[in-house]
Amino acid sequence: MDLQTNPLGGLSNEQIGEEAYALATEIFPICRSITGNGVRETLKRLAVHLDLEVHEVPSGTAAFDWTVPREWNIRDAYIKSADGNKIVDFARSNLHVVSYSIPVRKHLSLDELKKHLHSLPEQPDLIPYRTSYYVENWGFCLPHRQLQALKDETYEVVIDSTLEDGFLTYGEFLHKGETDDEVLLSAHICHPSLADDNCSGLALLTHLAKRISQIKTRYSYRFLFAPGSIGALAWLSRNEEKVPRIKHGLIVSCVGDGGGPTYKKSRRGDTEIDRAMAHVLKYSGHSHIIENFSPYGYDERQYCSPGFDLAVGLFQRSKFGTFPEYHTSADNLDFIKPKHLEESYRIIVGAIEVLERNLAFVNTSPKGEPQLGKRGLYGAIGGDKNAAASIMTMLWVLNLSDGRHTLLDIAERAGLPFSEVSETADLLLKFGLLRTQ
Amino acid sequence: MDLQTNPLGGLSNEQIGEEAYALATEIFPICRSITGNGVRETLKRLAVHLDLEVHEVPSGTAAFDWTVPREWNIRDAYIKSADGNKIVDFARSNLHVVSYSIPVRKHLSLDELKKHLHSLPEQPDLIPYRTSYYVENWGFCLPHRQLQALKDETYEVVIDSTLEDGFLTYGEFLHKGETDDEVLLSAHICHPSLADDNCSGLALLTHLAKRISQIKTRYSYRFLFAPGSIGALAWLSRNEEKVPRIKHGLIVSCVGDGGGPTYKKSRRGDTEIDRAMAHVLKYSGHSHIIENFSPYGYDERQYCSPGFDLAVGLFQRSKFGTFPEYHTSADNLDFIKPKHLEESYRIIVGAIEVLERNLAFVNTSPKGEPQLGKRGLYGAIGGDKNAAASIMTMLWVLNLSDGRHTLLDIAERAGLPFSEVSETADLLLKFGLLRTQ
Amino acid sequence: MDLQTNPLGGLSNEQIGEEAYALATEIFPICRSITGNGVRETLKRLAVHLDLEVHEVPSGTAAFDWTVPREWNIRDAYIKSADGNKIVDFARSNLHVVSYSIPVRKHLSLDELKKHLHSLPEQPDLIPYRTSYYVENWGFCLPHRQLQALKDETYEVVIDSTLEDGFLTYGEFLHKGETDDEVLLSAHICHPSLADDNCSGLALLTHLAKRISQIKTRYSYRFLFAPGSIGALAWLSRNEEKVPRIKHGLIVSCVGDGGGPTYKKSRRGDTEIDRAMAHVLKYSGHSHIIENFSPYGYDERQYCSPGFDLAVGLFQRSKFGTFPEYHTSADNLDFIKPKHLEESYRIIVGAIEVLERNLAFVNTSPKGEPQLGKRGLYGAIGGDKNAAASIMTMLWVLNLSDGRHTLLDIAERAGLPFSEVSETADLLLKFGLLRTQ
Repeated sequence: MDLQTNPLGGLSNEQIGEEAYALATEIFPICRSITGNGVRETLKRLAVHLDLEVHEVPSGTAAFDWTVPREWNIRDAYIKSADGNKIVDFARSNLHVVSYSIPVRKHLSLDELKKHLHSLPEQPDLIPYRTSYYVENWGFCLPHRQLQALKDETYEVVIDSTLEDGFLTYGEFLHKGETDDEVLLSAHICHPSLADDNCSGLALLTHLAKRISQIKTRYSYRFLFAPGSIGALAWLSRNEEKVPRIKHGLIVSCVGDGGGPTYKKSRRGDTEIDRAMAHVLKYSGHSHIIENFSPYGYDERQYCSPGFDLAVGLFQRSKFGTFPEYHTSADNLDFIKPKHLEESYRIIVGAIEVLERNLAFVNTSPKGEPQLGKRGLYGAIGGDKNAAASIMTMLWVLNLSDGRHTLLDIAERAGLPFSEVSETADLLLKFGLLRTQ
Repeated sequence: MDLQTNPLGGLSNEQIGEEAYALATEIFPICRSITGNGVRETLKRLAVHLDLEVHEVPSGTAAFDWTVPREWNIRDAYIKSADGNKIVDFARSNLHVVSYSIPVRKHLSLDELKKHLHSLPEQPDLIPYRTSYYVENWGFCLPHRQLQALKDETYEVVIDSTLEDGFLTYGEFLHKGETDDEVLLSAHICHPSLADDNCSGLALLTHLAKRISQIKTRYSYRFLFAPGSIGALAWLSRNEEKVPRIKHGLIVSCVGDGGGPTYKKSRRGDTEIDRAMAHVLKYSGHSHIIENFSPYGYDERQYCSPGFDLAVGLFQRSKFGTFPEYHTSADNLDFIKPKHLEESYRIIVGAIEVLERNLAFVNTSPKGEPQLGKRGLYGAIGGDKNAAASIMTMLWVLNLSDGRHTLLDIAERAGLPFSEVSETADLLLKFGLLRTQ
Repeated sequence: MDLQTNPLGGLSNEQIGEEAYALATEIFPICRSITGNGVRETLKRLAVHLDLEVHEVPSGTAAFDWTVPREWNIRDAYIKSADGNKIVDFARSNLHVVSYSIPVRKHLSLDELKKHLHSLPEQPDLIPYRTSYYVENWGFCLPHRQLQALKDETYEVVIDSTLEDGFLTYGEFLHKGETDDEVLLSAHICHPSLADDNCSGLALLTHLAKRISQIKTRYSYRFLFAPGSIGALAWLSRNEEKVPRIKHGLIVSCVGDGGGPTYKKSRRGDTEIDRAMAHVLKYSGHSHIIENFSPYGYDERQYCSPGFDLAVGLFQRSKFGTFPEYHTSADNLDFIKPKHLEESYRIIVGAIEVLERNLAFVNTSPKGEPQLGKRGLYGAIGGDKNAAASIMTMLWVLNLSDGRHTLLDIAERAGLPFSEVSETADLLLKFGLLRTQ
């Protein structure tokens, strides 16, 4: 490996923000759930950019302790007031219907209806996002202000949905690298019109996958677009033999807003991806947050379950559950921005660059310092107070390259950015002062 | 082990403060020393509540580097001024006589007398507590104000004591648990009328022993009431074969005042009792102090000597030597309170509960999360921002129950109280989601 | 080992400041470089105090990646202005000539001359120190104010130097101790008239060596006076079989000023010399600086290269490169002081005392505390609040002397100065309460 073969030399960030934002905009209106045509339609849009493999897992298939549920689809839903107006209408926002609502066609009093209404008293203008995947139920979500204004009259309620044996759908894309060791990059594909908490991750990973597919890498990269929890479990149970190949991984969600960045460590807490993300964030210029693992969140819950305990962390901008737009109609296309998507991309690519290049080299002249000067690597006039700083990186790499310290170890100990250490290692390799092990 | 068999379910704290205070009051007037009838009399009072084994170790018996001294008893002692008044009188306070004072019957000038008088210039109204166990001597302790007022005249001094071959006496109570592994709980029984620095520990451990004796426990519990240093050494030298059974231990002293609470760690510093006490104090609601081990203090000095190095710490409220009442006549029955005794009891019992229940379990569904919902363990409507918090404990216990993490490990990592983690483990055991190893 | 045989009992600090300052004054005017008669002349002055072995290494000798360069000597050098005045004169300060300048005899315009002039714009009254060891070049150093005042005229430039095959010279002194395990103490001998950054270290180590040579020690002490980098490399390459004997080491430079003290740790960072220096500095009464290893500095760079990785740190007062006098004509005999040299000596000797005496002992009475009282080691009247402090050191040494804790371990854990712990260990050895392993 040298300067010429920098494996990520070809990973451009040009237009990434705009491209990802455009794709997020395109898939925003689709009504996704953990199964159904919304997922299929979304995957079709991602597949425009990627040679995506789409998998269909039949309802009833076991996935460890879980079972793939029946497939849910919805065509229409509304609440009509006594005067015949559709006061709540699925056509205006798919958040209005509790996901996995069973079919309903009823006339109800306000009191009876209210048992099926969800609102946010503290955010009275927003529609909440609610689901009832594993308990048969139905419901509508609406602004609290609207709920409070409902008159005591009879309402017509229609949910034109189906819940039948079918399939759970997920998409997968594998970029083959020099080795079979894999980096997993995964985004959930089960939330309806929530821009940050779904579309941002899907769009960003799609365009990252597209760009990675065009370059040579040391690791293989597996991109997974699967419904939260049951999708990850389905993939894991159908691919148990591949799990040991996953050396590093990132769950990516909520990467379009301007908060954070936030990295939540893997269960093990000191894995290479944990250290790589902490390093990249330290030099990112953002005031960032590093959180310890906890067993609640996105699909890192599954990958970090004790039976797998993989080196998989969670990357987000604002942390889920902590921002007011989270799981409401305010998580819309105004909440995410191309520039935030680009910043998120740079951080993920930064971590990938660390993983790709984090090798331990051996100083070929380990006894004493090698004479940098005779190779033109040292300032010619000694004694200058300022000369020291300019060769420090070379000295650090030479001093610690004993085959036991990786470049990330060196960067951390020297307090230098990984990219500088890595470029210096390339230079020293070129001059024969380092060798691979 | 499940909710039904919580081994400490029967340990009530009802009336514990009042009962312990009453016993402390009863034994307060007795003149204890490291040997003699004061110890026997005190043990007799404790034995009202416990089936106490009383041991008598003959003077001259070797205890490692030490020898059991002659037995000391005292009937009367006073200083009479020239006008025949008893100006210092053992009958009024047994602190007036230096413990182990040899018999004396003399007339002395003030100057000669002063060589045998002890006072506290900075606490001029208090009588200090002094001993001379291993150097033959005699002396009186009195308020500094009184000492300064003594006229230059001839005094009559009488100490009607005996120092003769006899015995060292200690009491022992063993509650047998499911296993022979022991928890040692020990209080010194050698200080005369000092309420906090002796009576509180004796009284609290007696009533704790009484309550433990009425329930089933996993560990066996050994209670020891022995004179400081020589008593512990005598027990250790006579029971060397039992020492390896002691897995955890607490020395208990000064537990009736309102200071601290203070826990001093064992020599090893990271034993289960050290972690259990730190955990219980963290959640105790008290602003507490955790101190590293040092080789000065109570009998943890002996149990933590390098030849034994046991997991034995010291529990106190105010730390010995740091409060103005310490080793003075101000350490009286007004200085200790039932409510402080109860608080101390709750802390000790909290630590015992951790020890009893601190096992490592195995998640029976370790690949991915088990589906809590189908067992009724999960909120039915998903997406609610507040649902997460309520199931976090279950998720933590499931995620970390890989057979390597004990419940205390889990509580510490999750930042949750042990009792909550332990109750959740019981629930998951009941539902078959955990198993013992 | 006991109080009587304290191996460093004979190391006096009397007059050390004055003696070292006098020697520094004597060697200050000599024009040292990495080779040449300046080094020989300096070693001759050191040899007045020491039975110094002087080694001559021929030019062209390989030293790992390096080659011993040609020998440089200089007789005279000056710049003459058009009116015939020597405006820059080597005879006035040897800093005026760039070290290793090749012979020159030329007439030059101001513009041509300026390419060979070095000055410090921000310190316009000082002469900088510059070298060009490994690139053939020549130059003069002068105050910036003088450089700016130079008229546009023709200058005569003369450097009467030779650069020819010859030798690199270094001095070595070995004091044999009870064992072959060595402590390395090294100062560079390659800077011309710089008082702190050369003379101070040479002078202090010479007088330390003289004093150590007069006493018995456990370790052998190797003193090295060699040119920076190439001198250390030459010694290492000619003595590879001796390198494993070096158990601890200090590079000593800039020890005459009043800054710091500064200790830079070895590459390993937790070696005994690192801990000894940190301990001694903690109790030195100075506000000191402990720095982590970095691969730039003095010859610790060579001893801590990955092929050797020795336990060698760097001791300085002000850190090189951080004080304004560094590598300028202001680093003169006014900048260093006898009292600073003495303080530096005390710190180095403090660390040597730790190394010499840092053994792990075994408590001969490990079960329970030994009875200090019967040996007269304990206050006779117990219960006194103040008695505790006075015997704490004995209790710490006894408690931790299990054969695994060295005296430095004990001092660090107890928060006590090493000397107190060490003297207490001597006392306990004398009383048979400790034994060697």
